[in-house]
Amino acid sequence: MKKVAVVLSGCGVFDGAEITESVLTLLHIAKAGAHYQCFAPDIEQMHTLNHLTGEEMSPNRNVLVESARIARGEIQPLTELNVADFDALILPGGFGAAKNLSDFAVKGAQATVEPQVLSACQAFADEKKPAGYVCIAPAMLPLIYGQGVQGTIGNDADTAAAINALGGEHLACAVDDIVIDTERKVVSTPAYMLAQSIVEADAGISKLVQQVLSMS
Amino acid sequence: MKKVAVVLSGCGVFDGAEITESVLTLLHIAKAGAHYQCFAPDIEQMHTLNHLTGEEMSPNRNVLVESARIARGEIQPLTELNVADFDALILPGGFGAAKNLSDFAVKGAQATVEPQVLSACQAFADEKKPAGYVCIAPAMLPLIYGQGVQGTIGNDADTAAAINALGGEHLACAVDDIVIDTERKVVSTPAYMLAQSIVEADAGISKLVQQVLSMS
Repeated sequence: MKKVAVVLSGCGVFDGAEITESVLTLLHIAKAGAHYQCFAPDIEQMHTLNHLTGEEMSPNRNVLVESARIARGEIQPLTELNVADFDALILPGGFGAAKNLSDFAVKGAQATVEPQVLSACQAFADEKKPAGYVCIAPAMLPLIYGQGVQGTIGNDADTAAAINALGGEHLACAVDDIVIDTERKVVSTPAYMLAQSIVEADAGISKLVQQVLSMS
Repeated sequence: MKKVAVVLSGCGVFDGAEITESVLTLLHIAKAGAHYQCFAPDIEQMHTLNHLTGEEMSPNRNVLVESARIARGEIQPLTELNVADFDALILPGGFGAAKNLSDFAVKGAQATVEPQVLSACQAFADEKKPAGYVCIAPAMLPLIYGQGVQGTIGNDADTAAAINALGGEHLACAVDDIVIDTERKVVSTPAYMLAQSIVEADAGISKLVQQVLSMS
């Protein structure tokens, strides 16, 4: 049975992992007969937002503790992720990928990836094990894979320009489709960067999971 | 297009709405070509639990504010739910249904339903509009529909006995199946009361959503 590590970034689209994308990722991994294990970095969120009003809340919350809500408590600190135990890696999106796993939401073309996240993701890249990046998570690809890595966040011009400035090659992509960098074994899909409905998000994520598993 | 009101109870299995059940409910409503609108009561949770450690956290959180995470901000206070605007009602599970929407987790056979929730759910019952109750949410059925209402939480003997003591008729049910009270147009499924995997939960919830929509 293939094993997939899923890295979450909190619990909620505006300050953490996009919940729908995360659940659909887990659903399609399991439907394909593969096993998943969730991980998250044990760090503070960039901030915590009231998802009803958009206002900042205090106290701030912890990425691992909040990610545990999506994982029903079955989650491990990202430092415990050993690439040798897994066949593939998938990162759902949500602002958490650009606020907690990296600082892309704030720094754009000057972004950096959180050190634990960088180490874990680069381990899969180094081992040539396939990886899937959903929604805004592909913004991290140039910082993980280096110059020329191909990926998509859909069609937002400013975001695409920032990814290209980081050294990536952004390719426009429809919501129900994926971009595959076959050399690096990296798959990406726009999901809620473009999705107008849960059905649209589901279509792209289903395709991404199947492609990632097929390359492992 | 049919419209379904979905009532959430927070965001996280141990103190709120079960996230996976909630997302799968929304997915299957949308896949069936129906529209959904999420609601939640604007009340404090019974308590807030760290989903990594199981320990209580402070400050406590608000059911509506946390439910908004699942709904991507697209949620309304339960007091704004007008039964005339909807064809059906669905309540996902999670401990939130037994801690926030009712006090069944604490009081069992002496449980009561939170007044806003009782009012909203009884409105659908009075109008003979179909409703679906997932996981532990069916424990509220006798308090909403009265004596003899049929429902399931799977096969847990103590929970079933408490539901029967409240005046319901509990029927054992497999994880991938549903119980239908045809007279009252109420459908229930065990989901994570029994599910060992997300695929098992998905099977029952898919069936529940289809049945609820077919009766509307």
